[in-house]
Amino acid sequence: MTRDELFRQIRLKRSFLCIGLDTDIEKIPEFLKKEPDPVFSFNKAIIDHTHDLCVAYKPNLAFYESLGAEGWRSLEKTVSHIRKHYPEQFIIADAKRGDIGNTSGLYARAFFEKMQVDAVTVAPYMGEDSVKPFLTYPGKWVILLALTSNKGAADFQYFTSAQGEMLHEHVLKVSGIWGTADQMMYVVGATKAQSLEEIRKIIPDHFLLVPGVGAQGGSLEEVAQSGMNEQCGLLVNSSRAIIYASDGEDFAQRARDEALNVQVDMEELLLEAELL
Amino acid sequence: MTRDELFRQIRLKRSFLCIGLDTDIEKIPEFLKKEPDPVFSFNKAIIDHTHDLCVAYKPNLAFYESLGAEGWRSLEKTVSHIRKHYPEQFIIADAKRGDIGNTSGLYARAFFEKMQVDAVTVAPYMGEDSVKPFLTYPGKWVILLALTSNKGAADFQYFTSAQGEMLHEHVLKVSGIWGTADQMMYVVGATKAQSLEEIRKIIPDHFLLVPGVGAQGGSLEEVAQSGMNEQCGLLVNSSRAIIYASDGEDFAQRARDEALNVQVDMEELLLEAELL
Repeated sequence: MTRDELFRQIRLKRSFLCIGLDTDIEKIPEFLKKEPDPVFSFNKAIIDHTHDLCVAYKPNLAFYESLGAEGWRSLEKTVSHIRKHYPEQFIIADAKRGDIGNTSGLYARAFFEKMQVDAVTVAPYMGEDSVKPFLTYPGKWVILLALTSNKGAADFQYFTSAQGEMLHEHVLKVSGIWGTADQMMYVVGATKAQSLEEIRKIIPDHFLLVPGVGAQGGSLEEVAQSGMNEQCGLLVNSSRAIIYASDGEDFAQRARDEALNVQVDMEELLLEAELL
Repeated sequence: MTRDELFRQIRLKRSFLCIGLDTDIEKIPEFLKKEPDPVFSFNKAIIDHTHDLCVAYKPNLAFYESLGAEGWRSLEKTVSHIRKHYPEQFIIADAKRGDIGNTSGLYARAFFEKMQVDAVTVAPYMGEDSVKPFLTYPGKWVILLALTSNKGAADFQYFTSAQGEMLHEHVLKVSGIWGTADQMMYVVGATKAQSLEEIRKIIPDHFLLVPGVGAQGGSLEEVAQSGMNEQCGLLVNSSRAIIYASDGEDFAQRARDEALNVQVDMEELLLEAELL
């Protein structure tokens, strides 16, 4: 999917919501566990009830790998379901991969050829040749970790050079020449709006994937104020607050209610920014 | 497996070789492709022919994921085969994972409960809470990326603070308090022996997993001189040079020949260091 097409979807849906499919077998409604593939059944219901309110789905690989080959199969089925019924959706494999060049090439094959998602999250620690293989697929995206929303982000991402540059800023600057804003996005946590503003100065054009709104304490309004650009430039992720809104038979409808609340707020922010 | 037990195995086998099971479906002998599970058949033959010459096996997850759920199944079967027939082997899932705390916990579940490997490689970028969940399993190990052997290592791992500390050194120092030398190892590439010497000053006791010997240009002798400690403290990995020694019907025997060459050199280095 191109950047223009993504922006078109954002205007069409009046939403820049990404729903995180962090589907934990231990947290899904009890009655679903009788299904042959409970994880897929859960995902399918969530997707069928929310697809018109979001522009992206982001399964986190850890949740599927924790179930072994069976979990991997549930993930493949989930991606196929979205591809078949909602081809306008942007699908992100939240995998945080990264390895030496030829090995990253195999991860790219796994996610872009075998599974046919649109984007993969990648960790920057191993540098250029660990990221480049993902950039050889036309229309596919790398979403590079820059500043994450967790507590441990402080351990290394703020490590500062003699010139006063922080590691995450260095990652943004160095990686900026590896690919264009039509191939790369960045993960930037919502927990520090000031950082988001600084980051926008370094990369004005790139889309940012923003976790940490809601459950982790970030404010959607602050994120929009600090991070929006003229193509919106934001995908704001929400996982638990939406998909686990209820653990009863009404879980999918309640997930829709939560997603709708977020979409309504996003529509307002898009209108304020004169993007609709 | 404890550190003492690992050292005992090194003395018993007179080897500190780790064989990388980077099994690429496109590179295995043609005649194996008629088997129902070619990847597993290949791995099984390699393992059955080399297990007495090495102390560890390290499947890299990318190679298995590139085949989807089916590849994941081949990996599960490979790990089970080693566990059942060669329980003395140290099994490393080379996954380079790392995510926010609760999500890393699921990766830990995937590898330590579901798959029952001994160790997982983890990327440090997201900091303490991305690593800690792996450290809650008694007898299991985190192998943290410090200084990798690829070209892109130069992009961020040498990023230097005002105090003259490089990022990979900072990673070693900060992570040193997360767990003990009985729970953590570090990936340190063999391509720069001088760096290895500096690293040994920071972490004298930890085991190091060393890729990059052979195919990537590092010298085994230099690695031993700069990196050995009184419990050996080294697992030196070789993948392609061993497992793809031949693409004919003799591939497993030829892999054994290559592994034997390495083992003989390692035995000499262990004798020189008076560890045997």
